[in-house]
Amino acid sequence: MAAHDKLNMTMLCDFYELTMIQGYFANGYADRITYFDLFFRRCPDDAGYAIAAGLEQIVEYIQDLHFSAEDIEYLRGRKMFSEAFLEYLANFKFTGDIWAVPEGTPIFPREPILTVRAPAAQAQLIETFLLLSVNHQSLIATKANRVVRAADGRTVLEFGSRRAQGSTAAILGARAAYIGGCHGTACTISDQLFGVTAGGTMAHAWVQMFDSEYEAFKAYTQMYPNNATLLVDTYDTLRSGVPNAIRVFNEVLKPMGITKCGIRLDSGDLTYLTRQARKMLDEAGWTQCKITVSNSLDEYIIRDVLRQGAQIDAFGVGERLITARSEPIFGGVYKLAAVEEPDGTIVPKIKISENVGKITNPHYKKLYRFYGKDTGKAIADYLTVYDEEVDDSQDITIFDPDATWKTKRVYNYTAKELQVPVFRGGELVYKLPSLDEIRDYCAEQVDALWDEIKRFDNPQTYYVDLSQKLWDIKFDLLKRNGK
Amino acid sequence: MAAHDKLNMTMLCDFYELTMIQGYFANGYADRITYFDLFFRRCPDDAGYAIAAGLEQIVEYIQDLHFSAEDIEYLRGRKMFSEAFLEYLANFKFTGDIWAVPEGTPIFPREPILTVRAPAAQAQLIETFLLLSVNHQSLIATKANRVVRAADGRTVLEFGSRRAQGSTAAILGARAAYIGGCHGTACTISDQLFGVTAGGTMAHAWVQMFDSEYEAFKAYTQMYPNNATLLVDTYDTLRSGVPNAIRVFNEVLKPMGITKCGIRLDSGDLTYLTRQARKMLDEAGWTQCKITVSNSLDEYIIRDVLRQGAQIDAFGVGERLITARSEPIFGGVYKLAAVEEPDGTIVPKIKISENVGKITNPHYKKLYRFYGKDTGKAIADYLTVYDEEVDDSQDITIFDPDATWKTKRVYNYTAKELQVPVFRGGELVYKLPSLDEIRDYCAEQVDALWDEIKRFDNPQTYYVDLSQKLWDIKFDLLKRNGK
Repeated sequence: MAAHDKLNMTMLCDFYELTMIQGYFANGYADRITYFDLFFRRCPDDAGYAIAAGLEQIVEYIQDLHFSAEDIEYLRGRKMFSEAFLEYLANFKFTGDIWAVPEGTPIFPREPILTVRAPAAQAQLIETFLLLSVNHQSLIATKANRVVRAADGRTVLEFGSRRAQGSTAAILGARAAYIGGCHGTACTISDQLFGVTAGGTMAHAWVQMFDSEYEAFKAYTQMYPNNATLLVDTYDTLRSGVPNAIRVFNEVLKPMGITKCGIRLDSGDLTYLTRQARKMLDEAGWTQCKITVSNSLDEYIIRDVLRQGAQIDAFGVGERLITARSEPIFGGVYKLAAVEEPDGTIVPKIKISENVGKITNPHYKKLYRFYGKDTGKAIADYLTVYDEEVDDSQDITIFDPDATWKTKRVYNYTAKELQVPVFRGGELVYKLPSLDEIRDYCAEQVDALWDEIKRFDNPQTYYVDLSQKLWDIKFDLLKRNGK
Repeated sequence: MAAHDKLNMTMLCDFYELTMIQGYFANGYADRITYFDLFFRRCPDDAGYAIAAGLEQIVEYIQDLHFSAEDIEYLRGRKMFSEAFLEYLANFKFTGDIWAVPEGTPIFPREPILTVRAPAAQAQLIETFLLLSVNHQSLIATKANRVVRAADGRTVLEFGSRRAQGSTAAILGARAAYIGGCHGTACTISDQLFGVTAGGTMAHAWVQMFDSEYEAFKAYTQMYPNNATLLVDTYDTLRSGVPNAIRVFNEVLKPMGITKCGIRLDSGDLTYLTRQARKMLDEAGWTQCKITVSNSLDEYIIRDVLRQGAQIDAFGVGERLITARSEPIFGGVYKLAAVEEPDGTIVPKIKISENVGKITNPHYKKLYRFYGKDTGKAIADYLTVYDEEVDDSQDITIFDPDATWKTKRVYNYTAKELQVPVFRGGELVYKLPSLDEIRDYCAEQVDALWDEIKRFDNPQTYYVDLSQKLWDIKFDLLKRNGK
């Protein structure tokens, strides 16, 4: 089976989705139209924003949603599903609507990244996979965006496949890292499948395979004169690795008139070693030789070594990126926001919690982002009821939904709806952008955030406010439930 | 495509494997017999041991190892591989030997979990996938084993699919968690594919779908009288959820003579709420009602609430298990240990590092575990050169390889070789155990560890010692390289 085939993921659902939808089916709720919002409550690492990703895989999942004969047989074997229900599943397909923010969009807590309007059974079944896809790829895109910002314009390569949490984590992790701003990956299949440029030259084993480091470097450089990045830390970086690299560059590349080359360091003190190595390379005339480093890097280490004057052109970032080690969970949730009566009336629903932060924003909503006309910067996000229009020719007063006395006057702005229609009546109505388009859009949208939002530590909180109408509905539901 | 089909993962390799093996091919090293060890340097969470997992997926990977026409076409497009090499890849298959410790084995730093003897090109290509598979599943099995030990005999269910790092992380994560001792999963497909019992009843959406909590509980219990675990925290656990559950148990289950039932709490203070709920259930006569809790649990929270007298029968453990949040990386590495001369002589290789802990154990080795005959407990692991035999009828003196003056006399023991042959000349020679056999074996082998090794914090270090012969070879290589 070829690498680009896709496994059907319909059965990648929590078992309770199946017990519940049989229940909806038996109680006449299976076809009741429901609205579910997918949102998250806080950014990993207490960051000021996150990056949305994972939509493309959701599109593929929805398009392929069906139960095979083997799936039905397995479920029959569980002896808790009726034949009528199994027949219903055998004919199951998605007929609903999905709206979502495009991949690469900076996103903020408590706003709907994705909204499903579908018969209850369908909306329920897809919960697990939708969450998994958004949670995984948003986690990695968000982390990558931090690492890329720390590198301050230098190249960042994703090197983490071997430490990824399974094959999908490696393959789609490289995709998400690219969306977040990485320039490439070591993962070959991610290039083949998604066009994330894959590169790489040698491991320590290459150097060990030859009788000497010099011979190893020479053989490699003769073979790949245009791609000679030599790993210089197998024996002794400054006393052996860098001198041997320079010798080989002189012997092999110089006669060919090639001035581009590279070295990589995978251990030791990066600040000291890269400064010394840079000096040695420059003194030997190899000023265009790029220095790549790797070895348990993340945004904090990168920021630190750059502050200390490390001489680095490219970072290979592995395990701490591909697992988002500092906080390896993106806490997206999927909550009922409304149900539709047979006459089309939309009834808002709220989920109460003793924890105020866990109370949901009810109803079928619209999500706007306001941009300053003068600065181009994002000012605030704004949630309204589905039937409200924002007229951005008028000034608007928005208020903090948790501290309603805090208001802000917004003027000279444009309002942009963030969610786009993806499925309509089960049909795909969204043209999936290319991966490079997503990556460019992400960079542009992150540029539209104020620096205050982008601090690694203690960032400013971005406003995600509710319209007066939406807030009144929410407050009314809270009062009625809070007896 | 059905869920149990497998994608070919040959292209899930770091790109440098391909550039290196073309280099081996061009330099006459492709068929040179090499020995690589897969090992790790420290246990996640600074634990005293880890659990090996991921071998079954490696077996499938090796058996399916090949480059398809599309793969070759993609590589040709990269314009750095010769036609001769591409033809070599088109005929590529694995012809080597692999030995490994069985899945479920407790493992320790710096001992070979898996050893490959194969032509250099083959041994190199498989590096990324072998590491990825062992690193991912060992990470989760190890974490699960900690969580299960904290639960102290109570049921632990894996609930993390929606927060997993991609679909493989969910599916194989549930498998690995089961190996580590979990009793089941919420992930339907992991049951279908691997027989990890999947279960689950309802989410908050079920309760919200009905006009009242009482009606929601009643409908569910009527539908699933033998599997009625009711989620009681949608509105107010003690004032609404538990009373409604008791009312429904009385109305629906009592007339049917059913005494088994359950409630689940997903929020709030678990100690207080479960103690109160237990009291209410017992007073109502539902003494057999099981209490399940979930909500960002891990081994530390479980230990804490049990110490405080929480009344809990089962734990649903999600995101912190499926991502191994406390330390989401298993740091397995894959290093050249020896090469074979054409005459069959095995030449040991060592990887030097300025960091003493990163220096490898050279040579083709054997790995023994010594068990006390009287206690049945594991005493130490012992690495020898491949041609040494351990005679466990004789006492043996072992010594710490880092602090060689520390010796230990071992007597009245049995020595067991830990690695088993998995592939021989490219053919599978290992009968893969069933998942339940692996899980049982894991539990039995963890029982054979002393409690001192099993502490969550500051555990005793288990001995992994070298034979005198192996140590002499290592010391000699260090001296020669350390000039």
